[in-house]
Amino acid sequence: MNSSQQIELALGNAIEHSLSAALASVIGPDCPPKLADAMRYSVFPGGARIRPRLALAVACACGQDNPAVANAAAAAIELLHCASLVHDDLPCFDDASTRRGKASVHRAFGERLAVLAGDALIVLAFETLATGVKALPQRLPALMMIISRSVGMPTGIVAGQAWECESRVSLSAYQQAKTGALFAAATMAGAAAAGQIPEQWRMLGERLGEAYQVADDIRDAAGNAEELGKPVGRDVALGRPSAAVEFGISGAIARLDFLVAGALESIPECPGRDDLRALIQQEVDGLLPKQLKRETRDARQAA
Amino acid sequence: MNSSQQIELALGNAIEHSLSAALASVIGPDCPPKLADAMRYSVFPGGARIRPRLALAVACACGQDNPAVANAAAAAIELLHCASLVHDDLPCFDDASTRRGKASVHRAFGERLAVLAGDALIVLAFETLATGVKALPQRLPALMMIISRSVGMPTGIVAGQAWECESRVSLSAYQQAKTGALFAAATMAGAAAAGQIPEQWRMLGERLGEAYQVADDIRDAAGNAEELGKPVGRDVALGRPSAAVEFGISGAIARLDFLVAGALESIPECPGRDDLRALIQQEVDGLLPKQLKRETRDARQAA
Repeated sequence: MNSSQQIELALGNAIEHSLSAALASVIGPDCPPKLADAMRYSVFPGGARIRPRLALAVACACGQDNPAVANAAAAAIELLHCASLVHDDLPCFDDASTRRGKASVHRAFGERLAVLAGDALIVLAFETLATGVKALPQRLPALMMIISRSVGMPTGIVAGQAWECESRVSLSAYQQAKTGALFAAATMAGAAAAGQIPEQWRMLGERLGEAYQVADDIRDAAGNAEELGKPVGRDVALGRPSAAVEFGISGAIARLDFLVAGALESIPECPGRDDLRALIQQEVDGLLPKQLKRETRDARQAA
Repeated sequence: MNSSQQIELALGNAIEHSLSAALASVIGPDCPPKLADAMRYSVFPGGARIRPRLALAVACACGQDNPAVANAAAAAIELLHCASLVHDDLPCFDDASTRRGKASVHRAFGERLAVLAGDALIVLAFETLATGVKALPQRLPALMMIISRSVGMPTGIVAGQAWECESRVSLSAYQQAKTGALFAAATMAGAAAAGQIPEQWRMLGERLGEAYQVADDIRDAAGNAEELGKPVGRDVALGRPSAAVEFGISGAIARLDFLVAGALESIPECPGRDDLRALIQQEVDGLLPKQLKRETRDARQAA
């Protein structure tokens, strides 16, 4: 195991621990048991946890003075991401039957509990932030602004989802709101949690967010459902904007590489810059199924 | 116009202004226009705004030092209340066709925008709080805890709604979560916004919340749809717990009077105690349709 892999493991453990603690803080014998189950089911077992890991990695790279603050920000961002997946899967949106390799929340618990689990996770995100940042309240307003702007109006993930209800929308505005915003919040909140200026970390998050969205489009168009744990081909079926549809698989992979290079270049000077670069490179390497990367490389070489 | 009525008018104006400012802060030319419309439609024109008026009245009674803090807390509470109405009205819950005398949000904008408007209003509530309390960040963690606990798990309005998905539930636990929680948040947040200890204001909010719920049950069972601006008889039709069903109309009115007396008695010592009592009495007097109160009084006298 190399040092990047060790850091990744430690970050992953910190995130699972923070998420468990957040849920445990509001789930007890007196709460409605089905909603409690639906909330746990929405958060565990997790996906790649890429946003909270990014937040923690940036906080570490900035030389954080209080890990509880970054852990709270990271957990809040992941809870909001989980909430958005639960609501996006609802029958009125994607009507997805599976997510992360198991039944979607509304299929497993019914539509009412899926709506409520999403709502409760949004609220829990902010509560988790308040609890974790209590010792340094002067950092709380900025963290709340960064995180709430990345989720709500006018440019957060809810706004991104709302663009799907409009007849005219540009691909980049849509993707920026739907994915880029929460990635930018991850890098900016990581910096703000460590007491650094968040704004100079925005570009890293935005570029990684766009890269991640492009990778998602590619997987949706070319991946296989079993490897992804959710149905594929939904973008085309639902007529949604997609980089894979717009540029073709091979063009989309070239765009992905370009975005990642730009992301790595944008990392500001900080104590842990080299470790952060290595960590991000490692994350990015896992974004596309190996089979697909091999095929595309072979096709490029043959061309 | 007596002095209570003048105070009420001033509070009402402050709330409408804070809500308008909150929405204006996230709605602009670059945001998805239908979601912007659905959010405005969910908040304006408002209902009685009873929770935020209570929060402001308590902050005034406590001798607040910074009105921006109380205004932000009051607006946050009302935005969360509006969000809960939008989601409660969804087809998978009440499937209400009207609310506040006009089409419910999902009937006017479709189900997807109703889900998103609710989500965006929850996020906006916390963002509004962060913005308003920026100058006194040391008050922010407590305000966030009070408000998030009143909405989420284990005992907030989302938990209350989730009890409707369970086969066993006690009337008081259900009502406490569904209505009492946000009223308790209003009185406690009002006190916390003024820098006072919130806990001793909990009972006032809880009793008023239960009183308000009982009044709502009475209106649902006995009111007329035109006066209320929403359909009546829903509790019986949906098999929901209701004080009017449990105690009868006249018994429920007696319980309402008992709860209000207890609420007024619980008001802690504070500079504006007398004004607050008068204000609450005036609010409570408007809870039931005049016709219904006359009929019940006549029936009691005849008995």
